[in-house]
Order: sequence, then structure tokens, then C-alpha cells
Amino acid sequence: MALNSVETGEVKSSENMVVKRENGLENGVKRSPEVDLDDGIGTTENGVKKSQNRAVIVPKCRPKIRYSLLKTGLCYDVRMRYHAKILTSYFEYIDPHPEDPRRIYRIYKILAENGLVSDPTLSGVDDIGDLMQKIPVREATKEEILKVHSQEHLEFIEKTGNMTREQLLKETERGDSVYFNNDSYLSAKLSCGGAIEACKAVVEGRVKNALAMVRPPGHHAEPAVPGGFCLFSNVAVAAQNILKNYPESVRKILILDWDVHHGNGTQKAFYDDERVMYISLHRYELGKYYPGTIHGNYDQIGEGKGKGFNCNIPWPCGGVGDAEYMWAVEQVVIPLGREFQPDLVIISSGFDAADGDMIGQCHVTPSCYGHMTHLLKSLARGNLCVVLEGGYSLDAIALSALGVAKVLVGEPPDELPEPKKQPKAEVIEVIDTVMRTQSRFWDCFKTTQSNNGCDFNAKVDNTLMSENFPLQHAIRQQQLQNYTDDYNFVTLPLFDMGLPTNTVTCSPAIHEAESIIICVHDTPEIWAKRNRVTGLVDPSLSIVVDTAVHVIKWSVERNYGVIDVNIPQSLAEQDNYSAVMTSQEVILFMWDNYLKYFPNLSRLAFIGIGDASSGIVHLLGHRDTRNVVSSAILFLDTKPLRPLVPLVDESLADWYFKNSLVFASSEHACWGSDGSEAKKPRKKFGRVLKCDSDGLSNIFKERFEEATDFILDSFEEWSDTD
Amino acid sequence: MALNSVETGEVKSSENMVVKRENGLENGVKRSPEVDLDDGIGTTENGVKKSQNRAVIVPKCRPKIRYSLLKTGLCYDVRMRYHAKILTSYFEYIDPHPEDPRRIYRIYKILAENGLVSDPTLSGVDDIGDLMQKIPVREATKEEILKVHSQEHLEFIEKTGNMTREQLLKETERGDSVYFNNDSYLSAKLSCGGAIEACKAVVEGRVKNALAMVRPPGHHAEPAVPGGFCLFSNVAVAAQNILKNYPESVRKILILDWDVHHGNGTQKAFYDDERVMYISLHRYELGKYYPGTIHGNYDQIGEGKGKGFNCNIPWPCGGVGDAEYMWAVEQVVIPLGREFQPDLVIISSGFDAADGDMIGQCHVTPSCYGHMTHLLKSLARGNLCVVLEGGYSLDAIALSALGVAKVLVGEPPDELPEPKKQPKAEVIEVIDTVMRTQSRFWDCFKTTQSNNGCDFNAKVDNTLMSENFPLQHAIRQQQLQNYTDDYNFVTLPLFDMGLPTNTVTCSPAIHEAESIIICVHDTPEIWAKRNRVTGLVDPSLSIVVDTAVHVIKWSVERNYGVIDVNIPQSLAEQDNYSAVMTSQEVILFMWDNYLKYFPNLSRLAFIGIGDASSGIVHLLGHRDTRNVVSSAILFLDTKPLRPLVPLVDESLADWYFKNSLVFASSEHACWGSDGSEAKKPRKKFGRVLKCDSDGLSNIFKERFEEATDFILDSFEEWSDTD
Repeated sequence: MALNSVETGEVKSSENMVVKRENGLENGVKRSPEVDLDDGIGTTENGVKKSQNRAVIVPKCRPKIRYSLLKTGLCYDVRMRYHAKILTSYFEYIDPHPEDPRRIYRIYKILAENGLVSDPTLSGVDDIGDLMQKIPVREATKEEILKVHSQEHLEFIEKTGNMTREQLLKETERGDSVYFNNDSYLSAKLSCGGAIEACKAVVEGRVKNALAMVRPPGHHAEPAVPGGFCLFSNVAVAAQNILKNYPESVRKILILDWDVHHGNGTQKAFYDDERVMYISLHRYELGKYYPGTIHGNYDQIGEGKGKGFNCNIPWPCGGVGDAEYMWAVEQVVIPLGREFQPDLVIISSGFDAADGDMIGQCHVTPSCYGHMTHLLKSLARGNLCVVLEGGYSLDAIALSALGVAKVLVGEPPDELPEPKKQPKAEVIEVIDTVMRTQSRFWDCFKTTQSNNGCDFNAKVDNTLMSENFPLQHAIRQQQLQNYTDDYNFVTLPLFDMGLPTNTVTCSPAIHEAESIIICVHDTPEIWAKRNRVTGLVDPSLSIVVDTAVHVIKWSVERNYGVIDVNIPQSLAEQDNYSAVMTSQEVILFMWDNYLKYFPNLSRLAFIGIGDASSGIVHLLGHRDTRNVVSSAILFLDTKPLRPLVPLVDESLADWYFKNSLVFASSEHACWGSDGSEAKKPRKKFGRVLKCDSDGLSNIFKERFEEATDFILDSFEEWSDTD
Repeated sequence: MALNSVETGEVKSSENMVVKRENGLENGVKRSPEVDLDDGIGTTENGVKKSQNRAVIVPKCRPKIRYSLLKTGLCYDVRMRYHAKILTSYFEYIDPHPEDPRRIYRIYKILAENGLVSDPTLSGVDDIGDLMQKIPVREATKEEILKVHSQEHLEFIEKTGNMTREQLLKETERGDSVYFNNDSYLSAKLSCGGAIEACKAVVEGRVKNALAMVRPPGHHAEPAVPGGFCLFSNVAVAAQNILKNYPESVRKILILDWDVHHGNGTQKAFYDDERVMYISLHRYELGKYYPGTIHGNYDQIGEGKGKGFNCNIPWPCGGVGDAEYMWAVEQVVIPLGREFQPDLVIISSGFDAADGDMIGQCHVTPSCYGHMTHLLKSLARGNLCVVLEGGYSLDAIALSALGVAKVLVGEPPDELPEPKKQPKAEVIEVIDTVMRTQSRFWDCFKTTQSNNGCDFNAKVDNTLMSENFPLQHAIRQQQLQNYTDDYNFVTLPLFDMGLPTNTVTCSPAIHEAESIIICVHDTPEIWAKRNRVTGLVDPSLSIVVDTAVHVIKWSVERNYGVIDVNIPQSLAEQDNYSAVMTSQEVILFMWDNYLKYFPNLSRLAFIGIGDASSGIVHLLGHRDTRNVVSSAILFLDTKPLRPLVPLVDESLADWYFKNSLVFASSEHACWGSDGSEAKKPRKKFGRVLKCDSDGLSNIFKERFEEATDFILDSFEEWSDTD
């Protein structure tokens, strides 16, 4: 071709540029003064040999040989199976302790069965084939362990090596979920040493990544105390020693802890350390789940220099699975990890969130573990070390570890079995909270999360509040204006209750009405366009969805009297406790001071919308209103059911069940977390019905006709029986 | 150990389970009746041989050998360099056509230089080493091409093979950005055939994935017409033929087109086809960017059965880079791909969004191409085929292709060079729009996007509006109430303008004031907590940020008269055109009917907040107000600058520049998209200043003191000169 001559002239300059770029990219590694890089393509073979010979003498960090076929490292040593619970009864034999010595064997076995490891006898041979490479396990030295643990802690574990059976049983009894035998010390040192050696092999570039199948686990072992099946904090000890021995090439380590329990030990070891970012995904449930402290909450962000380098993602409930774990990893872990730019990633890899684990009761599949591993491989130039923590179903941990190992050696992850499943709403909420919390420290969350709602605790107090005003006041005022304009409504005074004068409004001459509909509702919802970046809502693109007006219109058309009660919500409360209380007081007040004195009133129906409807249930249990009240309709969506407490007469509960309709979303907690077994709420909650729609206004739209038919029937029936 | 005997008993059952699971996961493959799987570990070798022998005769889909070291396929053939522009002048030699034959050579060369390919002479040898495997390129058959293109189209391209130089030049002239020589037909058939063979090698499991370095590119070639340097739609032809020939194993294909241009040809080929999901990331800019039609917009979602299987991600501007591409891939492509569950992923891989490409003018780095490839590898069990499209900087495409190839062979992607950089706000906005649009079809976006703002066009019309009410009315009413309560404000009537009576409010006895501050503002912003899942804003957790009240307070303290003007925004408009008009009318009305008649008025200052401030600039150009107006302060954030049009007197523009402060965010478009060259707005826009904060209320807080100092100075100066 005519252009060939031009081509030739360009080769040199292009080659230079490429080499320059490669060097630039391997910058992190090159900082080490001891490193001599093999840049040329031909010298890779030598590079490997040199690094392996020297590794023993001087800790060296070698760049990975460019595109060579490095294997995945594997730590496994039968001696870590010696630590076991001393059996004291036949039942312990039948139903063994969950932290069972077979755990690591079963993982090794499944790797062999699937061709990842060549070891027909499963005895732990040295040459394990083309895909993985054995990393010999050694005991961690005392010096290494003391980088994390106290002298007393180490000495105590050491002593267990020479204790009598009785002493061991006593210590087992005394500890927080730990057991000891005379081999515990040896196994714990090997477990800790295995984690160190696996990380070393990765940062020295002898393997492309590593899987350390070690036990006893480590992440609950705090610097001064063992706990939760853990004796030494393996991952913390490994991280501390890597940071010490590779100061130039490993400056930052990311630890991702996907064990279903919070890794209190690891968190504590680095709580004020900005070199180690600790991220944990775990069941939390208001601190009730093991280890049962508030240290696992999202607001535990580190202290001192370590502020912003601790990130807890606390599940509010059990039963989470692939959708929630993928959401957390993709929304939080990867962006955070990418911005933190670690030199090494260690996964504290408990498999107790795995589908089938009876302790974790979660549903993470082996493919999901594979996908998460695949994502983590994109950080730290692939420097990834996976260290076993918990996981108590022998089948589940084997399959999960296989899912991880396949991806480590280079296979693509299997497809997720339920790709359409979406994370639970409360998990999305929690993860938003995590991102908002971390947005103080990390740019990746600033863009979309830092203005996501205001921090009311901070803002309610300060002077701003005097100038700004809560939106709900403005909305109620406008609502009132509309009712006055359209229906000549007037306000009904409440005395000495400290509520806004616009709380109760009603149709004219309400005291003379024969039939009355009372609508008790929360401040109406808003459909709003919220700017994703600034977090601001544009009022010109927002609409107030006034549900109550439908009730008013319907009632006015039938010449019924109407009372509209707006219960203001509390700015600062999560559970809306004070709104519930207010509603109860207001409705009781209205009965005691107005309704029971209205001379013509013969038929009364309640319609409740949202939390505010609790006042209705409260009244019906605390007064006998049956001579006028014919029915009560509650639209709850996902708001809590309220039980009728029959203070006046036991038969009230039956009456309530017969004369009420309670509309709940299909997502309402009352149906049970497991969709399969149809849990039915008890009678005292009224006649609870499952709706197809979600959201208060949608449920209202879906069921309003049914509600009004029910009221009309009850009014007629009431007239008949009267 | 005591537990060994128990262990042995379990081996069998565990083995069975594992095998069953593996079969389950390879289900997609097993559906093919022609496939015989080699389940055992020992028979993999045979499996490979069989598949390779038979592949020629019967199209077969073989499962990948479990954990074998499959290579990455590579298509490259020097004959695809024969298609070249016929040079008609010396200038075309100096400044060659961007779709340059050297493009594929340069990619092949950089792969060889970096050890991915072993081919010292760069001649296209058969054995290219341990990492990649040559996929021989052949001409696509007419039958294959006709699966996408019309007979006429094919015949026309065929004819170019025998045209004279003059005819070729005439056709080159006539076409839409295409050129022809006598080898164009051959090269185009090879390019097309290369894409087919690369996909075949992947789906037959002969390679783990593939890179097809082919040209001419294909994605602009529509079924009946070539265009945009493209003759045959290579990827579309490959996809159609794979679907035809592997009906059991390949039922769905995902095409991701990350070329900087919209792939109109590919989109058209599958617009009504639910078997192929087409996702394109491209510059769009209101349809002005090549190919310059609305077909690349986000609302082009497919038709008929293909509805929801076309997804455009249109960049609103140039200059996007890693942050935007990663955001799009992670927020849209991967969730969509995971839910779609393709059997094969094809990347239409133009590298013209690469940093350094003079046509694309974007900044995607080689590491970002690596990261995106890594993410795509997690779909379709790793069945990934990358096919070259555009990309016109020889250096940039070589480096970009290297970034992709490294990840294909199994290397982790390099770290992103600017991990802290966040996507542009307008890109986040666009991608939210894409997700909202696609949420009609895909569960992955339903959870968080389907209720993100209401569809006003749909809702404003219907009856709902009569019952619901716009939020801004409620807010203004409350604002007025506050001013009346705190400062005895009264309303100032506007006659015959069709505006709410609460539009203008002022301090008492305003007609007697000597000094007046006029604050003209949009409806105040809201800090709101928006539920991520339901999309609803909770009014009880929302606060109205009343900025204007600071102006009022400050003025009242100094005994100045104050006029507060609230300009209502339009519900349905994007550009706020009618609000701008309203503001201009209102301020002009106030001058003509009130201000110029106030007997004592000697000093007047304007403070504008948001779009509403345009009325101030309008007045200052349309009337000579200089005898009383001393200064104008505008808080704009990112709202458009408004030029003063000096209708009365040319000197007004100078006066305005001297007596105004215009506060704009550092993100304001007036500073130019490129931060490096400080663009300065012209004088007619007033004295525009860059603020550190973002958001109207933050900018207001940052600069309010400076603004009031400026007003005080101007008032004094005014008094002095008077």
C-alpha cells in the first residue's frame, strides 16, 4: 500500500511511548528502592527465579511478570485441623460444633474434585497442578502476633498447649464462644502464619492472587481477647506485618469482610489507622445479632487519623442474598476501593452468609461469591488475597469457596441464578445511609449522596430553623385554603393541646349533622423531582398528592358532615412515635368534647390514612362508640398495624374485626418475610387485606371504592338494625 | 482426627451434588441436542479435539473445558488494509483520511511489542504464542451479508470492485462519509467475515474470548445504505448469523457499542428484535453530533417485540471520560446485561472516545477500557467478542486496544488514573433519565428509578390535577404568612397580569420609603428526604430554604423599604421560559406603575435569586433607572447569564458592569467546559464572579456579606455624588 513507508517511520516513537506508559502504570511498585524491574519481554523467566530465591532472605516486592501465566496461591495444611472441640457427650459427636475441623478439608476436596488442584490422595502434596500453586504454611512468630495482640493474650493462648483436659474445658466454658484443646495454639499460629504467607506471595508477585484456607478463623479476636471461634486475628496480623515489611510497595490495604458477622476484632485493630480501610457487610439488626454491640453500625466510621477508613454495611434483617450483596459491593465497596487505591485487597471471607448456612440464614449463592470476587479483582492491580473466616455448612462453604477459587484462577463467574431479584427496600435505604455517612470522606458518594436529605439533628438546633420552615406547615395551610374555598370548611378548635390551629377542619354546621365521615391522615405525600446531584427538590416540579380531598368530595356529595384531621409528623423522629401519640390524643379529645354531644349524630365512619389512623383504633378500644360508629377504614401501606386494646369491653375486638377494613401493601411486614407461608394477622388488628399496589396514594386509589361501599353498607345496616 | 470416619461417609453424596450443580450451571449450553458433554475431568483433552475437528462440518456449541487454559482469539489479516482512500491531492497524503489502513496494523503491533502476540516480523503468522490464538479471517458469504443488508446494497458494494478510478471517486463523493477503491469489497467482506469467525470461535468454546481487529468498521452501515466509513454492518451480520446457526445455545446477544458515535446501522438491524439487546454510549448533543439524527436519543427504546431491547445513553456534551463511562457501564450496562442474560456479548469497540482522539474529543483512558472489559467479562459466562469500529488516533487506538486485550487474556485492569474524578452532573442526570425510561422494561431500574419524579406531561392533563396542588403555591403562601407575622408585610397588587395575589409583598408604607431593596426570586428550594424506592418525598422530613428572608431581615434592620417578588415557575417547561417572561413583565410593571412615582425614593438596589433575576437585567436595559438604582446583585448558581440589552442608551452596558455583581457557580457553563483556559463572560452580562460553593443557597450564604457591602458602598457613593 502507498502508506507503508509512512508506517515504518513511526515504529520507534510509538515503541518509546508504550514503554513509558507501562512504567507509569507500575509506579506503585517501582517506588521500592530494592526493586529491579525486568522491563524486557525476554527476561521474564529470570525474573521469576530471582524473586523466588531472594524472597526468603530480603522481603522484596516484585512486579508481576507482564502477562505471564502466574498461578493462584493456595494455603492448606492438615495441621490446622488439629484444633477441635473436646467432646464431652455423645450429643456433641452427633451434632458437632459448627467451627468444625472438616471445614478446610471439604474446601480442599471440592477444589480437587473440580480439577483446580491435582492431589488425588488429598494429602496436601507440593505440586498441585497448572492452575494453583501451594503456599507452604508456617507458624506465625510471636513477634508477628504481637503486632496486633497483647502479650497477655498471646501468653494465654500459648498456655492452652499444656493445660489439662479439665483446665481446657474450664477455659472453653469461660470464653465468649471459643473452645480449646492442646493443639489450639499450634493451629492458631498456623492459621495466622498461613494468612501472612498468602499475602506475602501476592505482594511479592509469586502468585497472581491467593486463597488461604485457614482455621481457626480470626476476625472476632480482639487485640486483648479471643472470641467468636477466633483465637488470633489472622487478617489483622497479616495486614500489620505486610505494612511493616513492604513499606514502599504496600502503603494501603483494603480489607473486605463478607463474613455474616461483624469483624469486631479487625475493626478494632485498625480503627484509628488510615493505612487500612476496613469494610464489613454483616447482619446487624439494631446491634442484636452477634457480636451484639453497636460497633457494627454504619456510624462507626473510625477515629482520629482513621476517620473515614472504617465502613460498616449493617443488614437490618436476615434473609438477604445475592441482590443485596451485589448492591452493596457495586454501590459501596467498589467505588470506595477505587478511590482508596489500595496496594493489596484482603477478603475476610466467611461463607456463613451462603445459601444453606444455618447460622447466617442468608442466601448468597456460589455464583454471587464469584461475581464479588471478580469485581474485587479489578482493584489493587489484581493483588487479592482471600482468607477464610466463618461458614458452618460444610456443603455451602465448599461450593462457595469453589465459586471464589474459579474466579481467582481466571474463569468468568457463573451467571447469578436470580438476576431479576432486586434488593430489599430496607437494604437500599441502609446502603443509602452508609453512602451518605461516608460522603463526608469520599468523593465517590459526594456527587449523589451528600445532600440526600438534611441532617436534622444538626440543623434543627441551629439558627437556620428560625428562617427556614418545615414543608408540612405550608402544605396543610394550602390544603385548608382549598377546603375553605371549595367547601366552606371551618376550623374546629382543639384546646390546650399545643397543636397548630389548622389541625382539624370540618364542613359547616357539623354539630347538626346526622351522618359524619372523619378522615384522619398524615401530611399528604409529594411527588417530586429531586436533583440527583444537588439533592434539592424543585418545588415547581412537585405536586402535593391530596388523598383526603377524595374523602371530602365523596362525603359532601352525599350531604354527610366531614371532619378532616391532619396529624403533623415529627421532624426528628424515625418511628413517628409522637405523631401516633398526637393522633390518639386528638381523636379521643374530639370524641369526649364534640362527637358524643352532637345531638343529631347517628352514623359515624372513620377513614384513616397512614400513621395517623392509630388514633382511630385507640378510640375504638378506649370508649364504647358502637352506638354511632358503624365502620373504620384504615389505609396503611407499610405502616405498622395497631392492635385494638379492648379496655371497655372484651367484645370490642370482635366488633372491630367485623366492622373494619385495613388495607396493607403486599410488602407489609405482617405477611411475613417468607412469601410462601401466608401468615395472617390476628383479629385484634382488624380485617387486614393485602393490596396489589404499593404506596399510600396507589393503595387508596385501588381500594377507595371498596371502602366507600363498605361504609354505605354499614350505614344502611345500622339504619336497619336501629 | 476422630471425625475422619464421618468424613469418608460423605464423599459420595458430596461428589454427586457437585456434579449436579455443574450441570445446572451449564444448562444454557446443554439445551443443544447436538452437544455431547465431557463431564469427567480426564476427558477434557478429547473434548477439545472432537470439537475442533467437527467445527468445520456442523456448527457446534461446545462447553468450555472446565478451567482449561483457553487462549484469547485474535482476528487480524493484512488484506483488510487494502481498502483505502484514493489520494487525489498531496494534502490527502500529508493529512490522511482518519479511517486509515494503519489502524489495525498499529493495534497488532502494540500487542506484539507487549508480548501478547509472538510475531517478530508482524506479518500475521499462525502461531502467535501462549496467550492469544489466531482466528483465520475469511470473506463473509453473500448469504451471510444478506441476513442484514439488502440485495441492492450488496450489489452496489460488489460493483465497486470493478469500477474505474473516476467512478470510484464519484461514488466516494456521493456517499455519506464513505470512500471506495477496487479492494473495498474484499476488505469489507473480510472485515465482516472476521467478526463472524471471532464470534463463532467464542460460542464454540475454541477460545475464551476474542478480539477482532477488523476494518472497514460497520456500525453506521444501515441495511440499505453504507455510511460513516462503514460498508457492511459487521457486528449485526455476525449477530444475525450466530443466532441462525446456534439456535439452541445462543438465544440472546447483547451488543454494547462504546464507539463515540451512535451505531445507527446496528440499532436499525435489531430495532424490533427481542433477541438482540443493543446498548450504545455516544455523544448526542440534541442530535447534532454525527450521525445527527434523533435515533440516538434515550427515548429510542425499540419497537414491536423489540421494545425495551434498545438502550441509548446519549452524552449531552463532549469532553466526557473515565468517570462518565464507568458510571454508565456500572449503573446501566451491567445491571441491564445481568437481567437480560445474554449467551454472547459483542462489544462494538470504537476507540474514538479515547483520550487523544481528535474526532471524539473525549478522554477515556486505556485503563478505563480495561475496566469496562473486565466488567463485561462477568456477563454471558465470559462469552465476549470485541470487534473494532472507529477510533482515529493511531496512538490512542493502539493503547486502548492493548488495555482491552490485556484484560481479555486475564490480566487485572490497571488502576484508573483519576479515581477521585466524578461524573459530570448533566451526565448523571441523563443516565437517571435512561434508567427511568428503561424501568418500564427492566426490574433492575424499577426499584430505584421508576418513581423518580412524576411524568408531568401525563399527569398535568388528567383529573388528578384538580385535586392535587402544586407545591410552590403552598410554599409561597406560607412565606407570605411568615413575612406578615414577623414584619407586617402587605401585598402589592399587580393588575391584569393573571398572577397569584401573593406574588409581590412589601414592607408597610413602601410608597414613602427613601431607600428600597427589591428581592426578586424563584420559589425557594427544598431540602428533602426522598424515599429511594417509592420516590416520594416525606414532607415531615423536608425543609423550605427561604433565602429571601435574609434579604428582608437585613433590609428591615436598616430601616430600608423591602419589596419581595416571588416568580412562580412553570410546571411543564424545561427551560423556564415563561418564568423568565413573567419576571420581566412584573419588574417592568412595578417600575412603570409604582417605583417611578414614589416621591421619596432616592436609592434602590436589586437582589435577584435564580431565573427570576432576569427581570432585573431586562428593566435596567429597557428603562433608564440610573437616577435611583445604585446596584444590582444576581445570585445565579448555574442558571443562564442574561445580557443587558441597552435599548435606552449605549452607556447602560458599561454602567451595568460597574454596578453589578453576578455570582455564578464554578460549574457554570460560562467558564467553558475546559477548566484550563479561563473563559471570561463579556461585559454585557455584568460583573460575573466565580463562587466556591455549589447550589443557590450555598452561594448565597458564601457571598451575601460581599453583596450587602457592595450595596452599602453604592448607597453611600450615590449619596456623595448626589
